Amino acid sequence: MLPFQVIQKKRDNNELSKAEIEYFVNGLIADAQGNKAFSDSQIGAFLMACYLNGLSDFETAILTEAMAFSGEKLKYAANGKPIADKHSTGGVGDKISLILSPICMAAGIAMPMISGRGLGHTGGTLDKLESIEGFNINLNQEQIDKCMNELGGFIIGQSAKIAPADKILYSIRDVTATVDNIGLIVASILSKKIAESLEFLVMDIKMGAGAFLTNIEDARKMSQLMNTVGKKLGVDISCVITKMDNPIGKCIGNWLEIVECEEFLKGEFDKDLKEITYKLCSEIFVKCKISNFEAEAFMQIDKLIDSGKALECFYELIRLQGGDLELSKMKYACAAPIIINSQGEGYVKSIDALALGKLGIEIGAGRAKETDVIDYIAGFKLLKSIGDKIAKNEALIEVYGEKAKLIPELEYRINNCFILDSKMNNIESRIMEVIG
Amino acid sequence: MLPFQVIQKKRDNNELSKAEIEYFVNGLIADAQGNKAFSDSQIGAFLMACYLNGLSDFETAILTEAMAFSGEKLKYAANGKPIADKHSTGGVGDKISLILSPICMAAGIAMPMISGRGLGHTGGTLDKLESIEGFNINLNQEQIDKCMNELGGFIIGQSAKIAPADKILYSIRDVTATVDNIGLIVASILSKKIAESLEFLVMDIKMGAGAFLTNIEDARKMSQLMNTVGKKLGVDISCVITKMDNPIGKCIGNWLEIVECEEFLKGEFDKDLKEITYKLCSEIFVKCKISNFEAEAFMQIDKLIDSGKALECFYELIRLQGGDLELSKMKYACAAPIIINSQGEGYVKSIDALALGKLGIEIGAGRAKETDVIDYIAGFKLLKSIGDKIAKNEALIEVYGEKAKLIPELEYRINNCFILDSKMNNIESRIMEVIG
Repeated sequence: MLPFQVIQKKRDNNELSKAEIEYFVNGLIADAQGNKAFSDSQIGAFLMACYLNGLSDFETAILTEAMAFSGEKLKYAANGKPIADKHSTGGVGDKISLILSPICMAAGIAMPMISGRGLGHTGGTLDKLESIEGFNINLNQEQIDKCMNELGGFIIGQSAKIAPADKILYSIRDVTATVDNIGLIVASILSKKIAESLEFLVMDIKMGAGAFLTNIEDARKMSQLMNTVGKKLGVDISCVITKMDNPIGKCIGNWLEIVECEEFLKGEFDKDLKEITYKLCSEIFVKCKISNFEAEAFMQIDKLIDSGKALECFYELIRLQGGDLELSKMKYACAAPIIINSQGEGYVKSIDALALGKLGIEIGAGRAKETDVIDYIAGFKLLKSIGDKIAKNEALIEVYGEKAKLIPELEYRINNCFILDSKMNNIESRIMEVIG
Repeated sequence: MLPFQVIQKKRDNNELSKAEIEYFVNGLIADAQGNKAFSDSQIGAFLMACYLNGLSDFETAILTEAMAFSGEKLKYAANGKPIADKHSTGGVGDKISLILSPICMAAGIAMPMISGRGLGHTGGTLDKLESIEGFNINLNQEQIDKCMNELGGFIIGQSAKIAPADKILYSIRDVTATVDNIGLIVASILSKKIAESLEFLVMDIKMGAGAFLTNIEDARKMSQLMNTVGKKLGVDISCVITKMDNPIGKCIGNWLEIVECEEFLKGEFDKDLKEITYKLCSEIFVKCKISNFEAEAFMQIDKLIDSGKALECFYELIRLQGGDLELSKMKYACAAPIIINSQGEGYVKSIDALALGKLGIEIGAGRAKETDVIDYIAGFKLLKSIGDKIAKNEALIEVYGEKAKLIPELEYRINNCFILDSKMNNIESRIMEVIG
């Protein structure tokens, strides 16, 4: 077999065999002498052929499996607990993993979570966690064992040993305009999950103007592909399609979202954030047989929050991974926001998550490119949410971060993100469909 | 501008601007620090996007021009002569450049020819010339000037200074399955020709089982694109579509073809070879106003051959470029061929050029990959051509080269290349159409 032949076959839109896909995945990784079967130009050409011709379900499953097995499996002891994880395709203000995982851990579910960083206008769980002083996302085996034994979970980054082929491929996709392809995305997400040896996975498939998937057909297609590939590889996957036009919750920005998570677990709910979090959580509870049905799960979640058990797990997670929440609060305490007032009046009809996400990059809350440095305090705190009434010159949003002062026409741009209406509209549910 | 954006635009099948294409071409070439704007993976992805989405006429013209100007123009003095060149898309036994260029030089046409090497089953002019002892395909400026002043032409390879972007791009296309795309081929061929500062170009567009283009529609499309791009860039191009199912002439193989060219110019014509050579030559004669019409051109070519003037130019070309034809003849004189006899009987209906070309690689007459070493004597001399009658066990072909002895079932495979018929068929013309 030659790389040329594999590229040619995909170029001509023929389905690749298991051997050909495995040859490609193994060919991404350099041997001891630094040689690899596929050169960078061949990887780029192959990816573009995959992007433009698409991957079949079979090809996606094989690619996923080959990438999952390109490195080591994550080693941990579940101690008899059901093993679950949650993953999102990326949203603005999406801090759900940080709320959901302590709730699940408090319910006795093992949750060995490998998360990602933010790139582009959507945030990343790892960046949020790293806004906490001392938080370590690279645990060694001893630390992993301690987290599992004392808490039942952790949130770490993708180490060099986990699915290295995915890591290599992702870095090339990122610069060759081959990221947003459903097959490649599913393979990338699930390869890491397969390497976690999961039993259950709940996927938050974001859909809308602020997400990669902008229509329901594509969201369904991706959900179905997730299910198909999951089935082939022995992971039970639930896909919840949720709307991602407006930001989730009140805060966008790494540290601001950590604070919002703590408040949530203290019982200070934002309705919007609660709806998605409870839904995703209940999917896991039912799959893991913690609950018999959704309504029961909702009650159990209420109880875990009311009792403070979930909050305890949140604190414990931070402590076990070296974070110091109190020190962080002191550090960020003096940050003073710019308060932007409303130029119009009426009821908030919608908030442009994509525009706010992009503005977030400009003020240092996110990265335009991988090497950009994040300002952890930078971000937005919405003072008005969907459905709220606002008067002219009333405070609309708080903007944090030193760079915000340098943004021209900040007030105008922020106001442009808010669509006001003279009458109050019905607030629609974020939950669209559950597949699988 | 970012490489990512240019790739994305082509990926989404939008037409690139002049600035974007120039950015790509300049981005192929490393600066003094070894940095280039486009990484190898980005070049590979871009090429595959071009391959699958195609290039518009505009894009092809701009790509051609940008590649032509990525290096130096060839410097030579035409001494008032019309400047022409001939190029073929690649055939089996295609030695026409080596016959045509001395005829044109003898007719007072300047012919600064940049040729290529063989790769795959088709031969290359440079390899044929290098089968001549001492022949130098890398002339310095002084040698170029001498050739132009004393003869009016030369045949050289593409130096590092001529269209370097094309050279880089070709080496990547070769390994990424992005060679056989009409736009990319036209840009690659014409960029070198533009760098030659030509006035007239005759293209031999090969079509058939032994060529890259297998049907007349694609051949027409390529011819039209050649004309369009040529017009935009100020070169008058004539495309002659010729059939490439059977090998051209009697010999396939580097040294064997040199001998065949000498014989041709001595007046020992192979009908088949004569038809295409005369046609291509007459196109140049008429364009360069050496002749008023085709029939006149044919008579003038006859005269240049009968008088020995064309043969003289052939010898002079070899001498001026350091070749020693007599020494070469002595060197190859002792090579004894394997003679393959016919297993069947009848009239030769067709000869499989593709299969013979591929067999040629196996016996060392061509290269499967760039680093393969050529055995210059290796090749085939057809003892029977299309339309010839052959008896069972009569000699069919001579096979040269030491490696031929190692090929299993050589007799069977050679016989398989010859389709015999019980009756004699009409011999069809090789010339299909002239476009431009």
